[in-house]
Amino acid sequence: MKTIHVNASRSYDVIVGSGLLRGAGEVIRSYCPGGVCAIVTDDTVDALYGAALEESLRAAGIKTVKYVFFHGEQGKNAQNYVELLELLAENQLTRTDCIVALGGGVPGDLAGFAAATYLRGIAFVQLPTTLLAAVDSSVGGKTAIDLNAGKNLAGAFYQPHAVLCDVDTLATLPDAQFRAGCAEVIKYAVLQDEELFNDLMISGTAFPREAVIARCVAHKRDIVAADEFDHGCRQLLNLGHTVGHAIEALSDFEVCHGEAVAMGMGVIARAAAANGLCSMDCARAVEDILARFDLPSNSPYGAEALQEVMLSDKKRRGDRITLVVPRGIGQCTLHTIAASELTNFVKAGIL
Amino acid sequence: MKTIHVNASRSYDVIVGSGLLRGAGEVIRSYCPGGVCAIVTDDTVDALYGAALEESLRAAGIKTVKYVFFHGEQGKNAQNYVELLELLAENQLTRTDCIVALGGGVPGDLAGFAAATYLRGIAFVQLPTTLLAAVDSSVGGKTAIDLNAGKNLAGAFYQPHAVLCDVDTLATLPDAQFRAGCAEVIKYAVLQDEELFNDLMISGTAFPREAVIARCVAHKRDIVAADEFDHGCRQLLNLGHTVGHAIEALSDFEVCHGEAVAMGMGVIARAAAANGLCSMDCARAVEDILARFDLPSNSPYGAEALQEVMLSDKKRRGDRITLVVPRGIGQCTLHTIAASELTNFVKAGIL
Repeated sequence: MKTIHVNASRSYDVIVGSGLLRGAGEVIRSYCPGGVCAIVTDDTVDALYGAALEESLRAAGIKTVKYVFFHGEQGKNAQNYVELLELLAENQLTRTDCIVALGGGVPGDLAGFAAATYLRGIAFVQLPTTLLAAVDSSVGGKTAIDLNAGKNLAGAFYQPHAVLCDVDTLATLPDAQFRAGCAEVIKYAVLQDEELFNDLMISGTAFPREAVIARCVAHKRDIVAADEFDHGCRQLLNLGHTVGHAIEALSDFEVCHGEAVAMGMGVIARAAAANGLCSMDCARAVEDILARFDLPSNSPYGAEALQEVMLSDKKRRGDRITLVVPRGIGQCTLHTIAASELTNFVKAGIL
Repeated sequence: MKTIHVNASRSYDVIVGSGLLRGAGEVIRSYCPGGVCAIVTDDTVDALYGAALEESLRAAGIKTVKYVFFHGEQGKNAQNYVELLELLAENQLTRTDCIVALGGGVPGDLAGFAAATYLRGIAFVQLPTTLLAAVDSSVGGKTAIDLNAGKNLAGAFYQPHAVLCDVDTLATLPDAQFRAGCAEVIKYAVLQDEELFNDLMISGTAFPREAVIARCVAHKRDIVAADEFDHGCRQLLNLGHTVGHAIEALSDFEVCHGEAVAMGMGVIARAAAANGLCSMDCARAVEDILARFDLPSNSPYGAEALQEVMLSDKKRRGDRITLVVPRGIGQCTLHTIAASELTNFVKAGIL
């Protein structure tokens, strides 16, 4: 078991280890003196782990309310958000109660935004069950829902009160979903950890779960501590995401987040090389590690199609947009260009 | 013109004076370098001041988008909130743009919650045009929407970037609405300003606008600075509100907020006296000042009916609820009782 302590506007522990779900009730109890916990999860995860979590909460003397929505990115929509708020209010949860997100990034983002805004904020615990949620979305306090116009366009910065990552739950992930989560692991390696990059090239998907997840969480913790509200270096975490979000949106979310981020990293690495920001070797190394994990590294859409969606991205500020580009493996930087240059910049990275 | 500087998680100025609407564009410009401002208002206020504000923004070189909803408390609903977010996204507002609330507490709360959550937060300027918004809702950063189960059940703490209170706009308020706003002015007097209480007993509704509004805002500023996130003394601002919110909800918002707060203050003052927390003279003084402003001081609903709604109030924590009670004029305190005692406590204050 590894504990990573996060210092942000709220301080909390991320605990990574085996068998944590069974003991979740004991941990959660200290965050809900009112004695009621709302579980937010999707139907897939509910079938696998819903009963175990409810049992653990009951054993700790906590009453439960459950909101289960249909799995998939579309679950993070405004209608489900409002439905969830109404459920919390109908059940008269107070500021002494708690919301728990059980599952991947979608339940985490939806539940986190509801926790941030219900009664202007109640306690919130994350129980990530996907690799992607474990290393990325469950830590750092970004919560959001999607709007018709794009992903994550409404949300809040709201740090969880605790994160319990039970690595046993990763065993039930479909292979494709596990590999998609690996894209976010690779992101940290390309971003600032060449040693991890080299280790992953050797291990492939057989990397040691607890150690690598804890290492990624520690990277994220450092970045979030330096820039919780995304004014500066936190934008580095968007490596592969500006292009990736556009791919997801254009595919109507047929391409999942992790795959889209992999594609985005491949595109941006080649674009950076073509624009003289890094070597061709660096771009090739990014392609190689993605291939090592059977992940795609090219966009199925052209630069013109991507551009329109990218310009509605939160990273745009007026007529400028900030991209994250590799300068070398383990060395990424922010690179701001005019919105009008975006199409040509990205085009150079599409095969 | 008077300026009250507020120090909270964001620092900002509340400017109270005559003719401020005309110059609003110049002030707002510094909060939207991206050059786009979304105006949020209701149909009544739009007809009166929408054009003047748009003209002022245009003259300052700012493009405008406008969201106009049907007036009344029901406007603060989840559907309008989502509609407003979608409008902002369709028009591709970025974090360098700005939202302006023009009107009373309803546009202010709705626009503020949208500003707090769109792209996880963009700049927000309040232009209150009602007395209630001027002295209360536009200052202090509480934003919210109503849910089916009750008022203000979802929202965020989000301080505005500036508040411009043009006292000229108060002249167009219907008499009943102006008097309703006086309930919040009276609240500050009962809460902590006996001198203001005595002045208001003499002046009635003819009090000097700029001076009294600035005085109330300064009171609120002091309380918010001491307890921005409502863990302690900020709850004092809820004088009359726990009962008041329940009355509003039971009346399906036929009773407006200010009137309901007046009723709530009358009920709680008599209840406090009956429960030995203040003198009968104090309760009578509260009744007298409400009568001086032609405001009601009794609940049209019985304690049992009120109780059920009050227990879904945000102020409840588990099985305890905190009320604000007068100990004397200008001296209110928090008073926590068991939820089970609530009905009897309140019953003693209903005539």
